[in-house]
Amino acid sequence: MRISELSRRSGVSIPTIKYYLRDGLLPPGHATAANQADYNEDHLRRLRLIRSLIGVRGLSVSATKDVLAAVDEQQGDMHLLLGLVLGALPVERSGRPPRRDGAEEPAGAGAAAGDAAEDVAALTAEMGWKTSPNPPAAQVVTETLETLRALGMDYDWRSLLPYAHLADRAARLDLDQLEGAGDPLQQAERAILLTVLLEPALLALRRLAQEHHSAQRFSNG
Amino acid sequence: MRISELSRRSGVSIPTIKYYLRDGLLPPGHATAANQADYNEDHLRRLRLIRSLIGVRGLSVSATKDVLAAVDEQQGDMHLLLGLVLGALPVERSGRPPRRDGAEEPAGAGAAAGDAAEDVAALTAEMGWKTSPNPPAAQVVTETLETLRALGMDYDWRSLLPYAHLADRAARLDLDQLEGAGDPLQQAERAILLTVLLEPALLALRRLAQEHHSAQRFSNG
Repeated sequence: MRISELSRRSGVSIPTIKYYLRDGLLPPGHATAANQADYNEDHLRRLRLIRSLIGVRGLSVSATKDVLAAVDEQQGDMHLLLGLVLGALPVERSGRPPRRDGAEEPAGAGAAAGDAAEDVAALTAEMGWKTSPNPPAAQVVTETLETLRALGMDYDWRSLLPYAHLADRAARLDLDQLEGAGDPLQQAERAILLTVLLEPALLALRRLAQEHHSAQRFSNG
Repeated sequence: MRISELSRRSGVSIPTIKYYLRDGLLPPGHATAANQADYNEDHLRRLRLIRSLIGVRGLSVSATKDVLAAVDEQQGDMHLLLGLVLGALPVERSGRPPRRDGAEEPAGAGAAAGDAAEDVAALTAEMGWKTSPNPPAAQVVTETLETLRALGMDYDWRSLLPYAHLADRAARLDLDQLEGAGDPLQQAERAILLTVLLEPALLALRRLAQEHHSAQRFSNG
């Protein structure tokens, strides 16, 4: 197909496609004339993957290159591929912007750090989760426990355990949806889309359920 | 207590406390001398709430004022209070920054919008969730479905239904943790902390579980 059709089918503008071609993110098409090239379905799929990494998830061009190189190298090893793709995606902290109010870190946050890390180790052990050493996601859980404690809440890994069981079931659902997804490029795309794009929706579903159950429990009317 | 102790116990600097006092976020202390005032436990709790709204969650000072006014007015009506607090908190879209790659919206996104909104209505009906009309969280779910479809995935409300059941259980856990939290100010603080601060941790738990189950299913080793 011509670049115009590639643009139409991917939803990516022609200047952006040309930028990806110049930058090596997208391999060149098959030249059919001095200033014209032909693109195939692989180009379209790769372009959709780039789009989901850069346009939807906000990865940098260089992080996107690393993920695409990993996809190219790890054909067939789905676990390595998933690890590379998920590992390259930054984990949201709390969507919080840099502190604007000039406040220091809560008193005691530093001292509690070691304890919180041990808590997360206890939680993953209890769940039987085997992960890579020090995954970024574990750091996020550690930080959350530290923050809750620094704000005076009595919260430890046992408080998180029921949520960890729900997360375990969510992850099984996620992986069910990757089975039979086709070639590694398609699997990588599905893994990214289902992991990253679903995240805000999962939080939004919790908010909707909170509103409903809050009305059930607390409404005076 | 003096402002220095208020600062030490809240982890908020004295200049920041003075700014909140000037701005009316924090009520004045009881004047004990020309240039000195005494603060009590209510000041400390309110300061921690302000801190969690502005410092942790990144709300603007004016949105924080609205939430605090609501807390003051809705003493005793926990459902209204929760609704006001949760309603004032922006729902994360996907953590995605403004589009950087110059790409247009995916083809077909506009046409799919009506369908996706109907999908979300079907989902909440199926779950039996009663919510306010057009809550921001429902819009996030709608946008997610639109994006997944525009990227070529076959995804509708039935695909989200198992996740909605998990969200329902998470919301029950959340509300269990608000029971017996004390006065409305404390309940509001707990609601904010548990809703907002737990969000990144819940997503991180899902990532940890994904890594574990991915190894179980796909590893060649």
